[in-house]
Amino acid sequence: MVTMRDVAQRAGVSIATVSFVLNDTKPVTPATRAKIERAMTELGFRRNMVARALASRRTRIIAMAYPALDHRFGFSAAEFFTSAADAARKQDYHLVLWPVGNDGAELTELVGQSLVDGVVLMEVQLDDARVGILQSIGTPFALIGRTTTPDGLPHVDIDFETTVENAVEELYGLGHRQIVLVAGDLSHPSFRNYGPYVRTEAAYRRVAAEYGVQIVILESSDTTRSGQEVAARVMAEHPGTTAVLVVNEYAALGVVSGLKKLGHDVPREISVLALLMSPETARLADPELTIMRTPGPELGQLGTEALIRQLEGAEPLPPQLVPASYQPGGTTARPRSG
Amino acid sequence: MVTMRDVAQRAGVSIATVSFVLNDTKPVTPATRAKIERAMTELGFRRNMVARALASRRTRIIAMAYPALDHRFGFSAAEFFTSAADAARKQDYHLVLWPVGNDGAELTELVGQSLVDGVVLMEVQLDDARVGILQSIGTPFALIGRTTTPDGLPHVDIDFETTVENAVEELYGLGHRQIVLVAGDLSHPSFRNYGPYVRTEAAYRRVAAEYGVQIVILESSDTTRSGQEVAARVMAEHPGTTAVLVVNEYAALGVVSGLKKLGHDVPREISVLALLMSPETARLADPELTIMRTPGPELGQLGTEALIRQLEGAEPLPPQLVPASYQPGGTTARPRSG
Repeated sequence: MVTMRDVAQRAGVSIATVSFVLNDTKPVTPATRAKIERAMTELGFRRNMVARALASRRTRIIAMAYPALDHRFGFSAAEFFTSAADAARKQDYHLVLWPVGNDGAELTELVGQSLVDGVVLMEVQLDDARVGILQSIGTPFALIGRTTTPDGLPHVDIDFETTVENAVEELYGLGHRQIVLVAGDLSHPSFRNYGPYVRTEAAYRRVAAEYGVQIVILESSDTTRSGQEVAARVMAEHPGTTAVLVVNEYAALGVVSGLKKLGHDVPREISVLALLMSPETARLADPELTIMRTPGPELGQLGTEALIRQLEGAEPLPPQLVPASYQPGGTTARPRSG
Repeated sequence: MVTMRDVAQRAGVSIATVSFVLNDTKPVTPATRAKIERAMTELGFRRNMVARALASRRTRIIAMAYPALDHRFGFSAAEFFTSAADAARKQDYHLVLWPVGNDGAELTELVGQSLVDGVVLMEVQLDDARVGILQSIGTPFALIGRTTTPDGLPHVDIDFETTVENAVEELYGLGHRQIVLVAGDLSHPSFRNYGPYVRTEAAYRRVAAEYGVQIVILESSDTTRSGQEVAARVMAEHPGTTAVLVVNEYAALGVVSGLKKLGHDVPREISVLALLMSPETARLADPELTIMRTPGPELGQLGTEALIRQLEGAEPLPPQLVPASYQPGGTTARPRSG
């Protein structure tokens, strides 16, 4: 059994200094810390963080709960995750991604064990079961997303209202008057109460009415194939359409390739604007998609900040709504008749 | 403070039964377990897993260490991760994704704390620092990937030799004699010792020599833009080329779109075969890419199995090498001259 004394001798420091490092009780210079860390590694010393955690109730691990098995984990999700992990690291926390279902069953099992200090919830449903569970267990959490009534819950989210407003304004300004929304698959049980789908559709209805644009909504799941199928439906069922807004990112790629396969010129004949997309995914389309850029990097960082402030007992972060920002690409233009 | 007695009363069972569930000491029917779980949730009972872990040294959490900030986390990575998470869940373990660097510094800090039972290492380097660190700490681990000398290390990996052999054989059989390899960016410091890049390049050199195919290797990073640039170089510098093998998946998308942008017909004028790709990514190309399908689902499951067998003291899983499997698409055909 390796002891703190062994580590101290190997590192050439006092036992007290080793203890400061182990228990975070006093600042130690990076060089000394490195010497001690190295000695611990070489000797196979286990800090026994579990005992420390038992005493302090802190592990400095935070979990991002992501229902990865239901949702697609594409570039946008990766942006949220890596920016959150970066933000955590900068404050000396460790963030792990945790693929648990939306029903909260696994959350109960794991969070109740005090192995993580707190949880960032992703892919929030309007009536998210996980919120009540975390509240009843008493685990600090923050939402990237919003329930129907998020007041009092620490949350950050996309400003869907402003995003859709700016998107419609952009297309309207180019001269488009027939703007179809390709929404998420709200008829699918997993997504019926999925905030981003519900909120973008509601915003489109409101904004389209304001602009006097006919409301046409088709649903698509988040695959290129589904996007291609819906592109065919748009042209067959709504032949006057000059522009399409698409919520899901892989569906948007499919809408572009589907329109081209059918012989339609994008953007000269029809424009496509992706509502929530990462620049990485936009580049996979040909021409590169015009997008409202998902604020993944910003929200990953803010969501982590909202949680860490609670853990540190700091001033709470007020709720933040960040719109997706317009990023020009090659799939939007004036309509031919305009 | 909620006690086991409170839980037992609420659930209508004996305290002993609650204890069996908490300590996993005796099997309990799913229905009874559910009743107890519900009572614990409703009462806000914390199982105090930390104390349990301290006693048993087990948390039933395993971490997949993925250097997500260096590598792209695309569909292939997601396949490894979700299949590993599924495999863990089936055996009553929880798998978390852990974005730590390849140098192992964070591993020391976290794994030394006994908060995870073991680690699955992804994106393995030929001289991976993390292996020595985990060995010195004494934490069970398994590799999805291989170091230069993996003998004695629990590992599963892609069979790059067979994959490249089958790919070249496929193209050669169609009549191709000038087959360029678009390799990973081995000149980049992060990837110089990255197993998949080194092994595919070595296999191509060997197999090309066997078939009497001239060896031409260009490097590309894993972005569509880099793939487009390399497509231009292939046609400018090696105009006789009739087929291209591409290691990286987003580079492969770029090679196809880059060739098309330059006015080349894929596959009539030039074939493209992606060496390690997920079907999801293949569908993003137009035409859909012909691929050697990365065995992500198989390896995620096997890597987790290799780790869990160690944790359970079961018969070790022998090292497994799984080739990528040919999946036809629209980007390969006989060469025009053939």
